[in-house]
Amino acid sequence: MRTYLDCIPCFFKQALEAARLAGAGPRTQKKIVNELAKVLPKFSLASSPPEMGRIVYGLVRKITHQEDPYKKIKAKSNKLALRLYNKLKDKVRHSNNRLLTALELAIAGNIIDYGVKNSLDVDKELKRILNEENKAIKNESKELFNYSEFKHALRNAETILYLGDNAGETVFDRILIEEIKRLHKNKRIIYAVKERPVINDALIEDAKKCSIDKVAEVISSGLDTPGTVLPFCSKKFLKIYKEADILISKGQGNFEALSDEKKAIFFLFMAKCPVVARDIGCNVGDIILLYSKHRRNWMKLKLGR
Amino acid sequence: MRTYLDCIPCFFKQALEAARLAGAGPRTQKKIVNELAKVLPKFSLASSPPEMGRIVYGLVRKITHQEDPYKKIKAKSNKLALRLYNKLKDKVRHSNNRLLTALELAIAGNIIDYGVKNSLDVDKELKRILNEENKAIKNESKELFNYSEFKHALRNAETILYLGDNAGETVFDRILIEEIKRLHKNKRIIYAVKERPVINDALIEDAKKCSIDKVAEVISSGLDTPGTVLPFCSKKFLKIYKEADILISKGQGNFEALSDEKKAIFFLFMAKCPVVARDIGCNVGDIILLYSKHRRNWMKLKLGR
Repeated sequence: MRTYLDCIPCFFKQALEAARLAGAGPRTQKKIVNELAKVLPKFSLASSPPEMGRIVYGLVRKITHQEDPYKKIKAKSNKLALRLYNKLKDKVRHSNNRLLTALELAIAGNIIDYGVKNSLDVDKELKRILNEENKAIKNESKELFNYSEFKHALRNAETILYLGDNAGETVFDRILIEEIKRLHKNKRIIYAVKERPVINDALIEDAKKCSIDKVAEVISSGLDTPGTVLPFCSKKFLKIYKEADILISKGQGNFEALSDEKKAIFFLFMAKCPVVARDIGCNVGDIILLYSKHRRNWMKLKLGR
Repeated sequence: MRTYLDCIPCFFKQALEAARLAGAGPRTQKKIVNELAKVLPKFSLASSPPEMGRIVYGLVRKITHQEDPYKKIKAKSNKLALRLYNKLKDKVRHSNNRLLTALELAIAGNIIDYGVKNSLDVDKELKRILNEENKAIKNESKELFNYSEFKHALRNAETILYLGDNAGETVFDRILIEEIKRLHKNKRIIYAVKERPVINDALIEDAKKCSIDKVAEVISSGLDTPGTVLPFCSKKFLKIYKEADILISKGQGNFEALSDEKKAIFFLFMAKCPVVARDIGCNVGDIILLYSKHRRNWMKLKLGR
């Protein structure tokens, strides 16, 4: 997805938020905003928003000298999510449609607020999210929840590349991967995380903490962008990207970065902002399981080609 | 009020909105955003937000070659508001507290959405706003609705400078001024509007269209800023500003520009954004009648001086 003009105010918002989280005072915050303003005129809107995200979070890192402002938040998210593991597994085991439930949980893992006070609160929130999701999925037109295509593609794929998103969420991804492996014994599943800290995105250490290395090969994409921007990925990652039969792509950032790629990708995320919602043709808050092929057809239709 | 860091994303939002209203295509919009980005590092946060507003709307005017993008909207607002005049007068006449009702209407005039389809819709909206306002005012702590001070100051003032805000709203201001004149025969009331178009702010032509010149002297402040920024006002206006015993200042923009002045000013507006709400210590959507003297005391307390 290209960058829309309406993304620009949001880049400044993100810069301020990240600067504050890195402990920057008002002067340093203004300095970061000024530097961002200097970069903006040179930034092409043909780039995807995560490419600007790389600049924003890079500036914050450079100016605040904080390599990983979200380190504590990530550790807390991992801990809380791990505590939920058994309960989540029970939910899947008792479900009439285990794969769908695991998918729902994988989305819940993306939108859960790990800032809440304790695991009881998280439990409550999870309940709320899952209820909302069920409603959302039921209301969802098949256009934006390509579940049967997903099942079909899973069956035929040999190599699956799973793009992780946030720390903590990785526990929920593990449950989906375990369910995929239960249904299809001999799949090769590779779970990719970021190389360097960016927002609360999972790193190798988070993936290991969440024991996803027990069920998948864990690799780094070589990235420090909030979304998988291919030109910045490592060679090793790109090789696997090419070899993979399908991708499961978690989170809005990965959708923004990869939505125009020709690979068979299943984008699994909640539309968190009006710009992305408009791009897809959904409402903010909608739960999306979008097959890249469908998106391409839809875009052709939209552009009248 | 100084400019907060959180105002910065909003400046870009405003630039995009105004550019679109001026009919600018995506390329021109990007050009405006780029120019704004170039100005930003030189802009001091000690300035008030309307000073940046002047830059934003000036850029849009210069780059789009549209002197008055909001001209049609303003004409429509005047027309709709004028159609309501008799009904509004009736409301005041039948009220137990005519001055308070006229004040409430003056606020309603500020927050009414003139984009609605017809005068029946406006009627419905007015009802909604007035109900909300009554609730708001009743719930309001006296800290932020200094009505008794307002009544007292009105009684003692000889010269009242009334700072208008939007076109259309001027009809509602006229009703408040008529009520003030009914209660206090020999006051000199001057109604100030903008010199050049900025957003949908009233100009001399709008003031005359709404017949406010029948009840007050109409002058221009010499401004093209969305708020009365004193250093940019005309000498004629500044003379009257100095002479005036009290000011009635309409709208958030005028509050932002004048909140730190030592004059006796009654700020009458709805807190429309979280930054202003935080500055005052209220919620977004709260109805404010704030006496400048109280604000000064409160700020001293807040800053521990």
